[in-house]
Amino acid sequence: MTREQLLEQINKKKSFLSVGLDTDLSKIPTHLLDTEDPVFEFNKEIIDATKEFAVAYKPNLAFYEVNGAAGWISLQKTLDYIPKDIFTIADAKRGDIGNTSTMYAKAFFETMDFDSLTIAPYMGEDSITPYLAFEGKWAIVLGATSNKGAMDFQDLMLEMSSEKVFERVIKKSAEWGTHENMMYVVGATRPKLLMKIRAMLPKHFFLIPGVGAQGGSLEAVCKSGMSSDCGIIVNSSRGIIYADHSKDFAAIAGEKAHQLQQEMKEFL
Amino acid sequence: MTREQLLEQINKKKSFLSVGLDTDLSKIPTHLLDTEDPVFEFNKEIIDATKEFAVAYKPNLAFYEVNGAAGWISLQKTLDYIPKDIFTIADAKRGDIGNTSTMYAKAFFETMDFDSLTIAPYMGEDSITPYLAFEGKWAIVLGATSNKGAMDFQDLMLEMSSEKVFERVIKKSAEWGTHENMMYVVGATRPKLLMKIRAMLPKHFFLIPGVGAQGGSLEAVCKSGMSSDCGIIVNSSRGIIYADHSKDFAAIAGEKAHQLQQEMKEFL
Repeated sequence: MTREQLLEQINKKKSFLSVGLDTDLSKIPTHLLDTEDPVFEFNKEIIDATKEFAVAYKPNLAFYEVNGAAGWISLQKTLDYIPKDIFTIADAKRGDIGNTSTMYAKAFFETMDFDSLTIAPYMGEDSITPYLAFEGKWAIVLGATSNKGAMDFQDLMLEMSSEKVFERVIKKSAEWGTHENMMYVVGATRPKLLMKIRAMLPKHFFLIPGVGAQGGSLEAVCKSGMSSDCGIIVNSSRGIIYADHSKDFAAIAGEKAHQLQQEMKEFL
Repeated sequence: MTREQLLEQINKKKSFLSVGLDTDLSKIPTHLLDTEDPVFEFNKEIIDATKEFAVAYKPNLAFYEVNGAAGWISLQKTLDYIPKDIFTIADAKRGDIGNTSTMYAKAFFETMDFDSLTIAPYMGEDSITPYLAFEGKWAIVLGATSNKGAMDFQDLMLEMSSEKVFERVIKKSAEWGTHENMMYVVGATRPKLLMKIRAMLPKHFFLIPGVGAQGGSLEAVCKSGMSSDCGIIVNSSRGIIYADHSKDFAAIAGEKAHQLQQEMKEFL
């Protein structure tokens, strides 16, 4: 999907919501467990109920891999079910040497037809650039994450510069691609940091997890992170998909997504 | 697998060889392509021919994921085929927030029964510690890799210390586990660095890729990286599994593994 197509959808739906499909057999409504593929059944109902309000879906690979090969089948079926005009994010956080990265890119961009993949930057340039060779596809690089452990290494100050590790990661890796094939993961829980990164990268899209369950505020995120043409995709997983555990789970998920979309509309 | 069991095997086989199963449909002998599961057929013959000389097998996940769900079936069959006394490494380089890490740990340690998993440290403590809660299982953390991009971020010097990023990663993360549930990936191409890391961690095992195709020397690796009780697992992938492309590929792979084992014996 191109940047223009993504923007078109954001403007049409007045939304920049990504729904995280962290589908866990121990958390989905029990009546689904008797179906042939409970993970897919759950996702299907969630997608039907939220697709009007969401511009992206983000399956978290761990929740599929835990079911082995069957999980990859659920994932493929889910991807095929998502309407083609909605942006798809494989939240896989891959990162390896050059020839292995090319294989991961083929896995997610060709074997499966995801629009984008999250990537861990620790191994440097050849762990990122192979993904940029695929037209219409996106590398979403971990910049500053919002988990507790983010402070351990990302936040360390570098010698002879006023930069932290994550700032160097963002600045350096941004040279390898463009705002039309790269995005960054930036956590929602630190608005000042978000503002700083926006100043560094005025045009790039940021994928922002951590609103809701992890404690980030949508208003703070919008005020500190938006660009002149939106520039953010805000993800909510548990707050939407596990808002209810009854047979009405999908309808409630749809309401939660609608509420978020209504809030987002005000900032566009 | 416990550290003792691993050492027992190293001593019995006089080897610290890991065979990397980077099985690529475009590189395996063409006569295998007509079989039902060419990736598994290839791995099976490679395992039969090398198991006498190898103490570990390391499938690289990218090469399985590129085949989608079918790739995960090949991977599961391969894992089941590896003799139980041989150490298994899922070279997956996962790394995510706490609850997601737990799901990855379950995927590789329970759904599949791997002994260990490679892990990317960018997201810090909660991206590593969940793996350490599984008895007899190992987290193999990326320390200093041997690819070109390793220089981009791992090698940056930190302020107010004489440490580089990778040194802090190793030192800090080593506090979260022990030499009985953590190892480190350290590239083979920089012996001085290997020596430095060995001085920091006298007891931990290092998983060392990069000997052979990537240019590292076994002798240099042994002299600079071994501990008092071996302490290294040296991986070779392409140099063994793609040494030959004819119907004799497995026999030739066995010879290559045997040669490496004979060289390794001298250093034990």
